Amino acid sequence: MAQQHHDSTAGDALTEYLQSQATEFLRSLRMHGESGVAAAEASDAARALRRAARRISGTLHTFRPLTDQAWADGLRTELAWLSGTLALEHACSSRLDRLLDALHRLSGAQLPTARTEPDAAGTVAKPGALTVGAARAGALLERQLTLARTRAHSAALQALGSSRFHAVADAVAVLASDVPLAPAEAAHECDALLPLAARVEARLAEAVAALPLGRAAHPYNAEALVHGLGSAPASERQDAPWHQVRLLLRLHRYAQEVLGADATRLAGASETLDRHRDAAEAAAASAAAARTPRIAPATAYALGVLHADQRHEVEAARFGFQQLWQRSVVTAT
Amino acid sequence: MAQQHHDSTAGDALTEYLQSQATEFLRSLRMHGESGVAAAEASDAARALRRAARRISGTLHTFRPLTDQAWADGLRTELAWLSGTLALEHACSSRLDRLLDALHRLSGAQLPTARTEPDAAGTVAKPGALTVGAARAGALLERQLTLARTRAHSAALQALGSSRFHAVADAVAVLASDVPLAPAEAAHECDALLPLAARVEARLAEAVAALPLGRAAHPYNAEALVHGLGSAPASERQDAPWHQVRLLLRLHRYAQEVLGADATRLAGASETLDRHRDAAEAAAASAAAARTPRIAPATAYALGVLHADQRHEVEAARFGFQQLWQRSVVTAT
Repeated sequence: MAQQHHDSTAGDALTEYLQSQATEFLRSLRMHGESGVAAAEASDAARALRRAARRISGTLHTFRPLTDQAWADGLRTELAWLSGTLALEHACSSRLDRLLDALHRLSGAQLPTARTEPDAAGTVAKPGALTVGAARAGALLERQLTLARTRAHSAALQALGSSRFHAVADAVAVLASDVPLAPAEAAHECDALLPLAARVEARLAEAVAALPLGRAAHPYNAEALVHGLGSAPASERQDAPWHQVRLLLRLHRYAQEVLGADATRLAGASETLDRHRDAAEAAAASAAAARTPRIAPATAYALGVLHADQRHEVEAARFGFQQLWQRSVVTAT
Repeated sequence: MAQQHHDSTAGDALTEYLQSQATEFLRSLRMHGESGVAAAEASDAARALRRAARRISGTLHTFRPLTDQAWADGLRTELAWLSGTLALEHACSSRLDRLLDALHRLSGAQLPTARTEPDAAGTVAKPGALTVGAARAGALLERQLTLARTRAHSAALQALGSSRFHAVADAVAVLASDVPLAPAEAAHECDALLPLAARVEARLAEAVAALPLGRAAHPYNAEALVHGLGSAPASERQDAPWHQVRLLLRLHRYAQEVLGADATRLAGASETLDRHRDAAEAAAASAAAARTPRIAPATAYALGVLHADQRHEVEAARFGFQQLWQRSVVTAT
């Protein structure tokens, strides 16, 4: 893959990658805006839009010296605003799904989505029911997260109709046809991309080295729940370095894509850290729901179990990341 | 070690072991009964008493064909009653300790027993405080488990003063001087013990083979919490095969001790299953406390987190047992 850029300049390689992402951005945008599109398709389109936006933004960040920097910085700010706004709705619904799935799992009940095969007698096995506490906790979370999702949906619609959004779309349309480069730097040969990509990789390695991987390597270390009854900021402080690695790993993956290298090896580690983030946010949502005034003790109890379960998933994700990372380091050396 | 019985009969080996345990039983009993003995010493004496009672009972069970069987069965029933009665008080206080330690750990607070070093300014760092919910949950558990312990203490005192108890002590005194054997069977050479010990080992192996060790080998499989919000009997059903292995492992260890074999290799696996049992019972106590009428939601939430944490420990113990067991199987073959 890396061969394809061999005779071209750094600017050519960058242009090729940014143009394909910009095209994808515009395609998703068109699909999202089409009237009569189903909710599932609109959601897929929004995901593809965010995916392209993240890649454009990450690439402009990593290879900034090769671009028109003022222009790149401006576009990155606007793409961050857009991605953030569009991501919220999806985050609310996937968080709710995660929490309701967990409530069913913790009740030893079958998931409502799991189809039950009729047995020999032709009757359908009755799925286990939620306990009162679990059912109430689920209803409370559904109420709170549906409200948040509805608000996020309105905010997204408002954003997509704003002149600020149209300016972003215009800027990406420019990118699709003509990437604003720094002429002198971009004229270097393709190898000029390597030290910039290496800088991202070094930042990632440094951030990973600062993680408590030794502890994470011991299953059931109970670290993630150590502030389970403490303050929320204490858990957030503990999670922050992992979230930081998640973002740097993403930047590194996108840089590898620009170089035409195989980045699939990193996808597993990335997904593990996505799971880490999702579980941490679900745990926080459960703790927040438990602070709702006048809830029944059974509801609060179920939310406590749910919170601990999700922090357990946080710890499991750290263990999983550690395993993948050690393996990739061993493979690389 | 096994050599020592080489020229003696099976009855001699059995007599030697039972007499030493009976002597230990009587010594602990004297120490426990001495007036003016401190609470800690009385508790140590009760533990030693139970330890000897378990070994006598287990040995009479495993090597039953070599003994006067009617007499052995009668004594085993009485020892089970005595051990059970004496164990309850200790179980209540160690369960409370386990739960309060966990509440502190989950609050990110230092344990009250951990002494804090003065810092350079000469002030002592203030240990992290429990949150309101954790403090209330701790107070509720303390109230409930202290009441249970007090009741168990009274029951133990009553038992130790009963004529039933005196009959057990008399029977153990008989054992210390003259073990009632089955004359013909006990006259066989020492190797006659082996098939009886092997039968226990086979039952243990069979029970271990029925455990879901493959699942336990995957850290963070979330199996132990699968009924975390379901009914208590569902969790108990899941735990039962592990408790059964714990008892069989004990029988196997005692049989190895009778044979003069090294049983320390098994001690680690035994401790892991003790931990499994303790965590399961602590989790159940937390769930039971949450069913107290009119508790505050914050208390119920903390009890939910605590319950999940202890079920997490249950799962960790299963993982630990699996690791030890695989290792011992690999070593043995």
